[in-house]
Amino acid sequence: MRGIHFLKQLGTSGKALSGLSLYFTSRSKPVRYCITGLFASGITLYYTAKHQVCHAATLKLDSSKWMSEPLTDLNTLEKNQNDMKCRVEAMIMRIQADVCHALEELEPEGDKFLVDKWHRAEGGGGVTCVLQDGVTFEKAGVNVSVVHGTLPPGAVQQMKSRGKNFKSQTLPFFAAGVSSVIHPRNPMVPTMHFNYRYFEVVDEGGKRIWWFGGGADLTPYYLDEKDAKHFHKTLKGACDKHDKGYYPRFKKWCDEYFFIKHRGMTRGVGGIFFDDIDEPSQDKCFKFVESCGDAIVPAYIPIVQKNKNSGYGYAERQWQLIRRGHYAEFNLIYDRGTKFGLQTPGARYESILMSLPLNAKWEYRHEPKPGSLEAKLTEVLKKPREWV
Amino acid sequence: MRGIHFLKQLGTSGKALSGLSLYFTSRSKPVRYCITGLFASGITLYYTAKHQVCHAATLKLDSSKWMSEPLTDLNTLEKNQNDMKCRVEAMIMRIQADVCHALEELEPEGDKFLVDKWHRAEGGGGVTCVLQDGVTFEKAGVNVSVVHGTLPPGAVQQMKSRGKNFKSQTLPFFAAGVSSVIHPRNPMVPTMHFNYRYFEVVDEGGKRIWWFGGGADLTPYYLDEKDAKHFHKTLKGACDKHDKGYYPRFKKWCDEYFFIKHRGMTRGVGGIFFDDIDEPSQDKCFKFVESCGDAIVPAYIPIVQKNKNSGYGYAERQWQLIRRGHYAEFNLIYDRGTKFGLQTPGARYESILMSLPLNAKWEYRHEPKPGSLEAKLTEVLKKPREWV
Repeated sequence: MRGIHFLKQLGTSGKALSGLSLYFTSRSKPVRYCITGLFASGITLYYTAKHQVCHAATLKLDSSKWMSEPLTDLNTLEKNQNDMKCRVEAMIMRIQADVCHALEELEPEGDKFLVDKWHRAEGGGGVTCVLQDGVTFEKAGVNVSVVHGTLPPGAVQQMKSRGKNFKSQTLPFFAAGVSSVIHPRNPMVPTMHFNYRYFEVVDEGGKRIWWFGGGADLTPYYLDEKDAKHFHKTLKGACDKHDKGYYPRFKKWCDEYFFIKHRGMTRGVGGIFFDDIDEPSQDKCFKFVESCGDAIVPAYIPIVQKNKNSGYGYAERQWQLIRRGHYAEFNLIYDRGTKFGLQTPGARYESILMSLPLNAKWEYRHEPKPGSLEAKLTEVLKKPREWV
Repeated sequence: MRGIHFLKQLGTSGKALSGLSLYFTSRSKPVRYCITGLFASGITLYYTAKHQVCHAATLKLDSSKWMSEPLTDLNTLEKNQNDMKCRVEAMIMRIQADVCHALEELEPEGDKFLVDKWHRAEGGGGVTCVLQDGVTFEKAGVNVSVVHGTLPPGAVQQMKSRGKNFKSQTLPFFAAGVSSVIHPRNPMVPTMHFNYRYFEVVDEGGKRIWWFGGGADLTPYYLDEKDAKHFHKTLKGACDKHDKGYYPRFKKWCDEYFFIKHRGMTRGVGGIFFDDIDEPSQDKCFKFVESCGDAIVPAYIPIVQKNKNSGYGYAERQWQLIRRGHYAEFNLIYDRGTKFGLQTPGARYESILMSLPLNAKWEYRHEPKPGSLEAKLTEVLKKPREWV
């Protein structure tokens, strides 16, 4: 147990020691000391890996605006900011709060998010925030989940299709993420989704494998090219800070992923999507994902502000409901996150299905009139464009 | 080509020669003559199998009330009523018409089904009948499809999970069926679904495998025990005529199949469900399925008649919309028919998704008040009952 003791003494200077993947980029004395301690104690490493005890590295976290207490107690989170699990949890709690507060500010009658903190019998839990039937937002959900345990065969299968190949039918795992779908009331305001997540899996040989995934995409009901450009440009800015190759790659991936196959069209005008990100280092991956998370408010809020008081009538509402039906189809038929979620034992389905719209409509053979604004949007969905 | 010529001369006496599976139960002269002709001509057998040409056995079909011309021309259908493919097509065209006309009679303002006959580039087509936004029915769809071609890997996979095991990635297939979902407007009238289908697949060794499947189930928004009993009793009557063991087995199968796993509850109060039925003979299977099809009108129509003018208010409508959300979840996440359909190349998604309600609602964490009628229904959904 001496290794853990050493780790606890690390303090903030160990911030660059990014958790269990053992990337050591900092060269400060305490870190070197710790490395010695770690490597001198195989048992400790095994212990911490097996029981997912957070490593020590204290960082004062400002949790005053978070929507709830975190899943892991704040003290543990603060003391273990060099463990990626703790670092991610703090980050997603903060992003959840930033987004929720920014959305609440757009509610003229003071509607607030309902906050549900839940625990999962099998390990972990989440904080689900939902604002329903607001003036600006018909249904907005921003969900944090931090879960661990054993993945069942169905969920392992979902992972396999993500390019991971595991021989086992079941696997120990840790998953933490923030995910959100915002369905505004006014059809002139697009729906927006984002999700950033971190995974750890221990394979058959006891090797810990980690990766990040995530993305954000915009689903307008009526196309405003300036809005689409603004959204993409903001996400591109977040990507470019880390790797100029990210945006083009992840923009394309987004168009491919958010594709409603049976309709032959994308869910919306896209954004970015990535999965299985584990390079160049855990720390750099974290910082990239954090930038993407921080880009949500500047990418989306101005679009809501600009359009939320636009005029609309019965026809526009009907089109919005039809398109929300398409949205539900994507989420229930194709979305891997939804499938993965519903296959995880003890999954809280209310949080997973929070992404579904408050209202949706399926008219048989509904087709927009040629030349209409609805048809114009459909054309773009069938042939994704470059926006930046 | 002589074999085909012989077959064409068969006439109605060959009715018991049930198509390509080569069950010969009739012993009349022309049939024996034909058998000789068939076996004397391996090439003919190959030809008919490969091109799915219907075999000869003339039966005058009354198509005057059918919703459209059949997919196969009427003359061919009439002349080949000993081919199960033709026999099934005539049966499903008739059942479609019977159900549609019975529903139309309940529309006080004379709303009629819209009839869409469609063709599939890869082979076959269908007749989709939809009545939308009627006074009695908010959305009612009754769909016939008769398709053939090659099954893609995804669809073969769907079949494998149905207890069929094929080594091939792709398989030649024929599928014909009638499927229907009726969503009434009044929340006191249950939604009803039925589907009867016939499959033929040619395996790796050239062996033709056939089976029937189907079922019918009732989804009330408010539980009327008498209605549930009537529905089950009528279906039981249809089953009992053929095998006393069918109803108990297929009732249980229905509760298991129409189960919304993540909610831990059935879709409704059930009915019957069966798949992979290929015993005791093709003819007996057909007759059983036909009885089930004929039971739809007497099982459902009296329930609609009884409740369609019941009073209801905003709260009941809201509950209906919430439950329609659950219905959409089942169809999009779990239903094998929907999955199979969407994975079939050239699938007409409008016909497949016709089952979705006109309107649905997803409220976060909606739960019926304890002791309410809504809660009473939910209890039954969580613990299926015996109704007969």
